[in-house]
Amino acid sequence: MRNIKITIEYDGKEFNGWQKQLNRLNIQGEIEKAIQTITGEKIELIGSGRTDAGVHAFAQVANFKINSNFPIEKMATAINSQLKQSIRIKKAEEVSENFHSRYHCHKKTYMYIIDNSEQGTAIYRNLTYHISQPLNIENMQKAVKYIIGEHDFSSFKSSGTSSKSSIRIIYDAKVLKEQERVIIIITGNGILYNMVRIIAGTLVDVGLNNIEPEEMEKIIKSKDRQKAGKTLPPQGLFLKSVEYEN
Amino acid sequence: MRNIKITIEYDGKEFNGWQKQLNRLNIQGEIEKAIQTITGEKIELIGSGRTDAGVHAFAQVANFKINSNFPIEKMATAINSQLKQSIRIKKAEEVSENFHSRYHCHKKTYMYIIDNSEQGTAIYRNLTYHISQPLNIENMQKAVKYIIGEHDFSSFKSSGTSSKSSIRIIYDAKVLKEQERVIIIITGNGILYNMVRIIAGTLVDVGLNNIEPEEMEKIIKSKDRQKAGKTLPPQGLFLKSVEYEN
Repeated sequence: MRNIKITIEYDGKEFNGWQKQLNRLNIQGEIEKAIQTITGEKIELIGSGRTDAGVHAFAQVANFKINSNFPIEKMATAINSQLKQSIRIKKAEEVSENFHSRYHCHKKTYMYIIDNSEQGTAIYRNLTYHISQPLNIENMQKAVKYIIGEHDFSSFKSSGTSSKSSIRIIYDAKVLKEQERVIIIITGNGILYNMVRIIAGTLVDVGLNNIEPEEMEKIIKSKDRQKAGKTLPPQGLFLKSVEYEN
Repeated sequence: MRNIKITIEYDGKEFNGWQKQLNRLNIQGEIEKAIQTITGEKIELIGSGRTDAGVHAFAQVANFKINSNFPIEKMATAINSQLKQSIRIKKAEEVSENFHSRYHCHKKTYMYIIDNSEQGTAIYRNLTYHISQPLNIENMQKAVKYIIGEHDFSSFKSSGTSSKSSIRIIYDAKVLKEQERVIIIITGNGILYNMVRIIAGTLVDVGLNNIEPEEMEKIIKSKDRQKAGKTLPPQGLFLKSVEYEN
């Protein structure tokens, strides 16, 4: 069977998350239906991981097995012709039969965008989270460094997570200021449920000078969700890229 | 009477344009109602100019006269509290009584954003116009230079325009490439009805190698709307700034 890898952009606002579920619009289900329409085959789409309702993706990765000899170079355009504009297949590639978008995922990068203007933004209101009080960027930049490395991130995961281990490696983590935006970018070998949104919420506490940057280390070590900040809302969160080893 | 100048961001997709009209959601009317709610006074909001249905603004400027002694530093926040998120008052300032946002407007800058990726964009679909064929940016950059200066822009205005003269001064005009986006930025002392969208459409003809960059000069001189390209759709157009002499 052929194994097809697709790279997908989507506007999370329009869906109840990635995962297939009955009677609720979801990204996985919409793409599976579109592929069935163009190839006539019922396929199972394997995503690199789920994203929650409201979370966006610039480049989610998924794969599916298929018998159809539909030409690969026409596949992205054909699938898109069956989808709403709020999902776009950016690329479709033929990969080796053993490629698995979840098991073989090597690194994931997420981005959280805060609009830090006084009055908020009309144009990007569904693509940012608004905080009107000025954030102390320098302190946020100090604090975010503590999450780099291998840690047990129990303090930054929502209860009800199915993952067995809470240990993850964070390769890079930074806070950037671009005009009125504060952008948090985190790259890791895996991300726990709600982890980026809780880290972002904790960094906001630092930015508002409610806690010192050095607190971040203690919060990690406590392994206590209660010590960390609140879970920020989904509309500021973007899955930026998913990387695989060649 | 006090004269208040406001700077406004809006998502054009949500409205039938700037101008007040019965039974159709419009930006001018929504802001007038919000101001009446917070001050108790019925005011007339004077915009620097209209924008069409679907056109966005980062910084539209308008002014209104009022007797209320509502504190200026709380005015933007108060008006916003009465508005949908798709309109944000970014700033409110007290100005001299003779300031008029339309008559005294000195320069306006518009931006047109084309998404030139092969498969289009999900996230920015309402904030860009998609063209999948690769555009020849170098030729577009040559062509756009011809519009700089004082010209009769009859070739680039929609029929039914009320303006008496079609002569405008363009101070700056450029085409930028940022990742998969092609951005056209035009600054002038005034902009005719649909002028930026028609110029953008003509530049796309250049970018697709349908016409040579040098044709731009002939199209301007012809003063014939039929010689220019099509009017591109509104969702790619942004009023970027409105400037006044101090």
